[in-house]
Amino acid sequence: MGYSQSTQSPDNQLELKTGLTDNGQLFYTLNYKSNTIIKSSLLGVNLKNTTNLTTDFEIVKNTATTVNEKWNPVLGEQKEITNHYNQLVVELVQKKTNRKLNIIFRLFNEGVAFSYEFPTQPELNYFVITDEVSQFALTDNHTAFWIPGDYDSQEYVYNETKLSAIDVTSLDMNNGIGMKGPLTKTRIQSPVMMKTANGLYLNIFEAAVINYPIMHLDVNPESLMMQSHLVPNALGDKAYLQAPFQSPWRTIMVSDDARTLLASKMILNLNEPSKIDDTSWIKPMKYVGIWWEMHVGKATWDYAGSQNAQMAQDAELKPTGKHGATTENTKKYIDFAAKHGFDGVLVEGWNTGWEDWFGNWKENVFDFVTAYPDFDVEEVQRYAQSKGVQMIMHHETSGSVANYERRLDRAFSFMKKHNYNAVKSGYVGKIIPRGEWHDGQTMVNHFNWVVERAAEYKIMVNSHESSRPTGVHRTFPNYIAAEAARGNEFNAWSVGNPPMHETILPFTRFLGGPMDYTPGIFEIKMSYYDASKKEQVHTTLAKQLALYVTIYSPLQMAADLPENYERYADAFQFIKDVELDWDESKILEAEPGDFLTIARKTKGKESWFLGAITDENPRNTEITLDFLTPDQKYKATIYQDSKDAHWEKNPKAYTIKEMTVTAKTKLKLNLAAGGGTAISFFPVK
Amino acid sequence: MGYSQSTQSPDNQLELKTGLTDNGQLFYTLNYKSNTIIKSSLLGVNLKNTTNLTTDFEIVKNTATTVNEKWNPVLGEQKEITNHYNQLVVELVQKKTNRKLNIIFRLFNEGVAFSYEFPTQPELNYFVITDEVSQFALTDNHTAFWIPGDYDSQEYVYNETKLSAIDVTSLDMNNGIGMKGPLTKTRIQSPVMMKTANGLYLNIFEAAVINYPIMHLDVNPESLMMQSHLVPNALGDKAYLQAPFQSPWRTIMVSDDARTLLASKMILNLNEPSKIDDTSWIKPMKYVGIWWEMHVGKATWDYAGSQNAQMAQDAELKPTGKHGATTENTKKYIDFAAKHGFDGVLVEGWNTGWEDWFGNWKENVFDFVTAYPDFDVEEVQRYAQSKGVQMIMHHETSGSVANYERRLDRAFSFMKKHNYNAVKSGYVGKIIPRGEWHDGQTMVNHFNWVVERAAEYKIMVNSHESSRPTGVHRTFPNYIAAEAARGNEFNAWSVGNPPMHETILPFTRFLGGPMDYTPGIFEIKMSYYDASKKEQVHTTLAKQLALYVTIYSPLQMAADLPENYERYADAFQFIKDVELDWDESKILEAEPGDFLTIARKTKGKESWFLGAITDENPRNTEITLDFLTPDQKYKATIYQDSKDAHWEKNPKAYTIKEMTVTAKTKLKLNLAAGGGTAISFFPVK
Repeated sequence: MGYSQSTQSPDNQLELKTGLTDNGQLFYTLNYKSNTIIKSSLLGVNLKNTTNLTTDFEIVKNTATTVNEKWNPVLGEQKEITNHYNQLVVELVQKKTNRKLNIIFRLFNEGVAFSYEFPTQPELNYFVITDEVSQFALTDNHTAFWIPGDYDSQEYVYNETKLSAIDVTSLDMNNGIGMKGPLTKTRIQSPVMMKTANGLYLNIFEAAVINYPIMHLDVNPESLMMQSHLVPNALGDKAYLQAPFQSPWRTIMVSDDARTLLASKMILNLNEPSKIDDTSWIKPMKYVGIWWEMHVGKATWDYAGSQNAQMAQDAELKPTGKHGATTENTKKYIDFAAKHGFDGVLVEGWNTGWEDWFGNWKENVFDFVTAYPDFDVEEVQRYAQSKGVQMIMHHETSGSVANYERRLDRAFSFMKKHNYNAVKSGYVGKIIPRGEWHDGQTMVNHFNWVVERAAEYKIMVNSHESSRPTGVHRTFPNYIAAEAARGNEFNAWSVGNPPMHETILPFTRFLGGPMDYTPGIFEIKMSYYDASKKEQVHTTLAKQLALYVTIYSPLQMAADLPENYERYADAFQFIKDVELDWDESKILEAEPGDFLTIARKTKGKESWFLGAITDENPRNTEITLDFLTPDQKYKATIYQDSKDAHWEKNPKAYTIKEMTVTAKTKLKLNLAAGGGTAISFFPVK
Repeated sequence: MGYSQSTQSPDNQLELKTGLTDNGQLFYTLNYKSNTIIKSSLLGVNLKNTTNLTTDFEIVKNTATTVNEKWNPVLGEQKEITNHYNQLVVELVQKKTNRKLNIIFRLFNEGVAFSYEFPTQPELNYFVITDEVSQFALTDNHTAFWIPGDYDSQEYVYNETKLSAIDVTSLDMNNGIGMKGPLTKTRIQSPVMMKTANGLYLNIFEAAVINYPIMHLDVNPESLMMQSHLVPNALGDKAYLQAPFQSPWRTIMVSDDARTLLASKMILNLNEPSKIDDTSWIKPMKYVGIWWEMHVGKATWDYAGSQNAQMAQDAELKPTGKHGATTENTKKYIDFAAKHGFDGVLVEGWNTGWEDWFGNWKENVFDFVTAYPDFDVEEVQRYAQSKGVQMIMHHETSGSVANYERRLDRAFSFMKKHNYNAVKSGYVGKIIPRGEWHDGQTMVNHFNWVVERAAEYKIMVNSHESSRPTGVHRTFPNYIAAEAARGNEFNAWSVGNPPMHETILPFTRFLGGPMDYTPGIFEIKMSYYDASKKEQVHTTLAKQLALYVTIYSPLQMAADLPENYERYADAFQFIKDVELDWDESKILEAEPGDFLTIARKTKGKESWFLGAITDENPRNTEITLDFLTPDQKYKATIYQDSKDAHWEKNPKAYTIKEMTVTAKTKLKLNLAAGGGTAISFFPVK
């Protein structure tokens, strides 16, 4: 066993070594500055009914190249992205089978990525992957932020433990998640964020998951080795493939500065450029909707209660009077959106099926084209257009993907006929085809299929309960956002999201792409609606504002009820002002699980927005506004926690102050426990 | 254990007795005339994760009713069908669970049917059937005509053995079937045709399979008990259901006259009336097509040979020059169809994908809308319309049903845009969603889904490699035909179909509905195309003509090449003349496995057609033409085997004679070994 090749990152801080073991298996190691990040780790894939592509290799050729290019995302955190890496392609041949396998490594300054490439060859055409055995041999018992390796859901609270203490079986599963898949004691999801004893930040994830299952990670708590585990299908197989094929990228990000890791565009860079030529119709969208009122119990998705209708459109339904998605209510939201400058209005529960939709693995629930009798699609659309507001369609599939795919063209045609240009989709339920999981190859292909077909109709997609994104929105920029993590909604009816939740998401879920987190809840405590309720949002009101900046998404909801915003019109002004698409973004401060401060410059405008959040601990900090344009004066409006604010004891206490600032100004930020600060900067003469 | 109820058929020849066993399980017995047909046999279903619905029942009520009604099929063997039965509904309650289960029996003169009904009830909403335990306890070691209980295919030759000798493992599997599913030693398919030692004809089958898997039969070779076996899904489950639900009907037909059994419309009567209101667009169709020339090796489906294209429309294809579906060739078929009065022309291989379509469980093969470069859809359609000929679309799915369903609306829209009103679909390959079988609940639902969606587009469907029909074409009369058995094509490239094959099909496969058997092969021996070939059609030419009458289908192909028909223009005249839709049909002679003679009167016309076929034995018979209208003279044209004809030694030897006949005429028919006679009767003044 010996090193055959050494490759450096462009800044020479990362060094990758690759070589073959004595039995002909490829291994790699990774060093960062003077630290060993990954010890000798093996690579390969196991195949069904034929020789595994693991051992017996010889290296035919090592090819090194460098790429340094810039590109412009359609929507994004910055208008220009640099893609700079050194690439090593290791061409392998398996001696006994004469099969070729290439392993492609890319070294960026912030990390390394590798991918398995199966070239066209006589010896390997169709093949089935039974598992991928990519190892990540860690060097110490790092602190990790992890969630269980559930095949069906990522809507978990993050756990912060040593690697050796990972134990999925010890978790309280009374956590509000309606749809859980099978779990294994030491199997966790990627991305997993880690911190080493000597202050390095590590992250293991993947990019460009196309026609392949999601990768989870099996952790050996003794050896501290992580190994890829692919989500299976009904038969236990992982991926059905045909050469040529290139696997998703496995990524290891590393830095001694957490901000570098957050600012990295490595995941996006590893995805293919946009496959949509005309992207002029893909636009950011700030929206309100008939949604939170269902979560807080004021209204229902269903029209007729739980009447157990076989297929609601065939049954005679008697209204309960609690239905949220009425024409009248929708018009109120349209009026509110128009008055306050929102782009769109989402309406959930507009279509038949909600009387009997969940929990029974039912195949034909929704047809996506039949409105309830009290929702007049044409009248709603006419009214919205008259007010210059776009309606956002809602497609809950209840996990019955077979049904959704059958009806997709009809559903999209219905949308376009009625002038809808964006859809929020949902996948709450066990998957049909039965035996598939949310994170398997079939579902990955489904999510991409929907987005591709949507692009043909010029429809933007915001998927909930989908597999978590891996930068594929670079390729399909109409995949404008996804949920695929534990969103704000859990605060309405479960143990909720602890104050540190939003400080971890940027180091994990957000690495893959925009999230529809639905911030902006002003009435923090559910006792406002029902005195007996103990649930609450685990932040201050000011932190809800700051989330519009710390969360990157070109689709953002103002999730609370219009009447609540009207009662806090001064704070609401920030949500009205904040932008969704950016020239540049500056990570000013970052520590996973603790705090985060980000400033972003509006695309094509001189205005800036800043968000600072903290976990359950109050935080005082001072920032210099040196990101602002020199010699330009700005009016800064600062939305901050009051001195006595506290996420639990006094969450709605905020103050707003205005001041004139320049790039030389230093600002003291005082964040309450579970608090935050939001600032808008508008240029003044 | 005692009989609680006795029910008779309308003619009192059949007697059903029902009652409960000591442990509360429903049983039934069936007598016909003085014979016990079914000994005490148990009924029930097993449920997943809950108490089986088998034992612990009490009978709440027995309700007897009689129905006697007539209805008119859209297309059919007779213009009016009588539906006459005595019904017994046994209402059961399971004591421990308080669950209700009704068993509905219907006694027709030709047999009994029963069905499980799960009423709406608090105690049973969603449920999963893990198996159905319907027993059929036979009374003797009957002779049976059976095929193996393959989950994926019915394209087998029938085996004629005693029940005790059924052994699937003993069969030669080198039989040309490309797609075989799992097999079990004594599991056979329904319908199974039987004959008793004392000359009774028995048949066990099912009707109206909707949202339920296909029923196979497990035979106990010692006790002679048959028991239902439902085809599973990927997880081993059989059916996902919600109350109210009624299962398919299980049918036991019995008669001492084989003709009564063949003439029965019991299976159709057990299906629901048409769900299509306007059926004016559903019409019989006689067609030719670019198809047999691929089977005999003259042309190929693919354009570019086996180039292993990932998805052919993305690859650059180099034509081999053997492609059958060219615009030019299609025009020749259109000319031929127009000249000879055919309704339609089928073109297989018109669309991209055939370079790499089979055998690898590949998901995305065909897109159903992309033509090969040498097939001009618009020009073909223009030409066909100018000649008054309809084009028939071809959709091979390669078993990738997920792909087909995703693309179905696009495929049908493409068809309508180009004026196609009928589609032949194909399902050659392992099913995707992976883990499903052709005969499982998912696929049953798929076939019905396609037909329902096709009805919306006013498209007629002819499905190949689908699950075998169970009379559902009554409900969806646009489901005009199916293959779902071993068709004529096997004679081109395999051991083929033995001469007795077509004498068994009417007692088995055809009970469920029309078959696209593709008769009419004149060039019997494949050595005509290639001297080295030994394959041949196992009939005489005259028998190929007779099949147009003995096979009932409103969709019939003249499968041979135009040039072959032109060389035998006198015999071809029968194919041109024969009709496809009937006022009445008379089974004149019938013996399963041996012979069959049928006469049919054209719908709305005075003409008649007669077909007589035999197995490997020559047959001489005399028939009286008393089915003809009294006092009407007819010109009879008789297409018969020459004296020295023989399916193997001299298959193309035929003679044609004309004579004037009346209802009093007696005709001697002399059928060669593997031979047949076809006769047209046109009224003359």
